[in-house]
Amino acid sequence: MRIDIITVLPELLESPFAHSIMKRARNKGLLEVNVHHLRQYSNFRQNQVDDYQFGGGAGMVMMIEPLVNAIEALQKEVTYDEVIYLTPDGQTFNQQMANRLSLKGNLLLICGHYKGIDERVREHFVTMEISIGDFVLSGGELAAAVLVDAIGRLLPGVLNDETSALFDSFQDNLLAPPVYTRPEEFRGWKVPPVLMSGDHRKIEEWRHEEALKRTKDRRPDLLQHD
Amino acid sequence: MRIDIITVLPELLESPFAHSIMKRARNKGLLEVNVHHLRQYSNFRQNQVDDYQFGGGAGMVMMIEPLVNAIEALQKEVTYDEVIYLTPDGQTFNQQMANRLSLKGNLLLICGHYKGIDERVREHFVTMEISIGDFVLSGGELAAAVLVDAIGRLLPGVLNDETSALFDSFQDNLLAPPVYTRPEEFRGWKVPPVLMSGDHRKIEEWRHEEALKRTKDRRPDLLQHD
Repeated sequence: MRIDIITVLPELLESPFAHSIMKRARNKGLLEVNVHHLRQYSNFRQNQVDDYQFGGGAGMVMMIEPLVNAIEALQKEVTYDEVIYLTPDGQTFNQQMANRLSLKGNLLLICGHYKGIDERVREHFVTMEISIGDFVLSGGELAAAVLVDAIGRLLPGVLNDETSALFDSFQDNLLAPPVYTRPEEFRGWKVPPVLMSGDHRKIEEWRHEEALKRTKDRRPDLLQHD
Repeated sequence: MRIDIITVLPELLESPFAHSIMKRARNKGLLEVNVHHLRQYSNFRQNQVDDYQFGGGAGMVMMIEPLVNAIEALQKEVTYDEVIYLTPDGQTFNQQMANRLSLKGNLLLICGHYKGIDERVREHFVTMEISIGDFVLSGGELAAAVLVDAIGRLLPGVLNDETSALFDSFQDNLLAPPVYTRPEEFRGWKVPPVLMSGDHRKIEEWRHEEALKRTKDRRPDLLQHD
């Protein structure tokens, strides 16, 4: 899979893709992530990429021209399955969307900054708008990092144990059950005895019940989709 | 505000806080972010911090002892308003929560990794569990970065124009209206004439209508909270 990211802050995205699971995915050649600096696509003085918004008001707007230059330059190299704009008013990202996107070949992500991007880019170039949640960030960069991480870890061969992602929260509309590791007792707090029983059927039953209980308690909305 | 973060991947969090708005917040002394390496609090060989889960199954679990060492060492220095564990089964983060947390003094964030942290840490030390959305990441680090960014930009004096955050999506249960900047026409695509009219009352009306229309269309659920 190849993911290209257009941003005014490429340096912000340096460390998130350079470590841990994303590093492994890239080193194994399973995921290619390219970060492109929007300013390099500006033909304006001082590589200007933003300007005051028409109609007045606080906050700058990212100009259409540098964005279109960047998008079209990249589209000459690659055919994208989706051109995604990260924005608080997009579709809310979830695990099902991550699963679906992990099956694509090439994605182009556009990070907004300041007040957002000129609406005409959204109308004419963007094919999908995604929000990672109902909150506002100072830019789309962290949202892009979240997207790449959530998608990247699903690519076959990225996680050490391929079964691992299947048991994550949300994959079966259930939250994950509690987990415990050594020591069996710490300051008098003990691990539930069933986990030490060696009885795998009982353990699986207990985990399912705990997952169900936790989901009913914390996120009953997830159960309604069944 | 002071935010401490406990993580097994401190290097992943290097760039997100070193640039742009977070950098400005830190340079102005409005936000202090300290990243603590969990391995430094391990008394085990090779600074071990995780182990196999009791009851079997794929994925490692973060051990209680190094986490408690880290939490208690930090609590000797600072009194925390909240000890927050970033986890997919936590309360879903949103703008109202960001607003509330931005009024706190000190926060301690714990990043999960692998399969999660030993449940006993959650029961006995964590005061708040937050999820940034219904998707699974390879660790809590990006979730922590998102939280710090969403909260940090709300601190008075961080954004250039203090009115700016007030007009963001979600602050009034409405998505933001479309924005435009120069040029007025690009490849035949024009800016809505009202924005060029100079009539501020009309512009505000148009923006409110567009925000309402966009919210009804994309996120009718936001309007039900009114």
